[in-house]
Amino acid sequence: MNPQGCKVVGFKQPSADERAHDFLWRVHHAAPARGVVTIFNRSHYEDVLIARVHDLVPQEVWSCRYDRINAFESGLVQDETHILKFYLHISPGEQLKRFKDRLDDPAKQWKISEADYKERNYWDDYMAAYEEALSRCSTEHAPWFIIPADHKWFRNLAVARIVVEHLEALKMTFPPPSVDLEHIRQEYHAAKKHSH
Amino acid sequence: MNPQGCKVVGFKQPSADERAHDFLWRVHHAAPARGVVTIFNRSHYEDVLIARVHDLVPQEVWSCRYDRINAFESGLVQDETHILKFYLHISPGEQLKRFKDRLDDPAKQWKISEADYKERNYWDDYMAAYEEALSRCSTEHAPWFIIPADHKWFRNLAVARIVVEHLEALKMTFPPPSVDLEHIRQEYHAAKKHSH
Repeated sequence: MNPQGCKVVGFKQPSADERAHDFLWRVHHAAPARGVVTIFNRSHYEDVLIARVHDLVPQEVWSCRYDRINAFESGLVQDETHILKFYLHISPGEQLKRFKDRLDDPAKQWKISEADYKERNYWDDYMAAYEEALSRCSTEHAPWFIIPADHKWFRNLAVARIVVEHLEALKMTFPPPSVDLEHIRQEYHAAKKHSH
Repeated sequence: MNPQGCKVVGFKQPSADERAHDFLWRVHHAAPARGVVTIFNRSHYEDVLIARVHDLVPQEVWSCRYDRINAFESGLVQDETHILKFYLHISPGEQLKRFKDRLDDPAKQWKISEADYKERNYWDDYMAAYEEALSRCSTEHAPWFIIPADHKWFRNLAVARIVVEHLEALKMTFPPPSVDLEHIRQEYHAAKKHSH
């Protein structure tokens, strides 16, 4: 997509400033302005996934977050933001294959992190956390799409189709002119005459 | 370009908050982070162009700005930002032709503004202002490129060539891996064994 109307925001480990605010603060700040597409790479869902799996906050904190997420997203939608959420599912075997590719390809070695392998030990915990997040926070106004992602061509096709269908359903048109066209036509003819 | 590494920032009429700061404040804030390409649509040069042509500030204010711009840009370059500045020149006749296209094409009518025609009366003043800005602020570290832009194919080709040549000259490589690859290979084999 043309970067003129599309932004990508990656949510990393929260900074000190971000940690000093509630978990939705940095996400709200990154919400797209009217007319803009913003792609979130990770999101506030980390706060009910990694935060839960690794006990970063106690259960009484993360367990309230599902309702807060739904209320937050529903507010965005009421103000005409459209939300599509994609969960890209890969199998443990495919993940291992991709780790191998990273080891073998010098152009991919920079992507390797120590944490890659450690996180595999929490696979079942992550699945349980995803299951709750996806079932409690897939709403009509902000649905989750579960995308089988072992094959990149299928993943790309599925996501692209959903995005295109959604954009087409909006039936967007050009904004009407903000000026009196007849007056502008006179301006044009005056300028044209003047230029000879 | 992929929006993951490319941002477009358009500088419009300054907001009340922006006007409450010096003219470089909002520009500095929009400067690209390491590894990111940011495309400015207009810039701090408006503050020696439209600000000068329309007397938005007195001469003793705008006349100091050339040196401040050079100092600002030179600081960015010292911190390894690369700056390319493009002036897209179109002739008065071509501009009028584009205004006509906007009037005739319903998909372009929303772009029409009353100011389009009024600003044509200041053509010579703008040329004088551009001439001073381009000659005083085209430096070795942050050059201005004057692009003949009546033909869009030529404009696009010229800008793309300059950008590509500049990127190639940086001889960028992938970052080195941040981990001990031998250790990761052991992790991989352990995980592989475990998965059978």
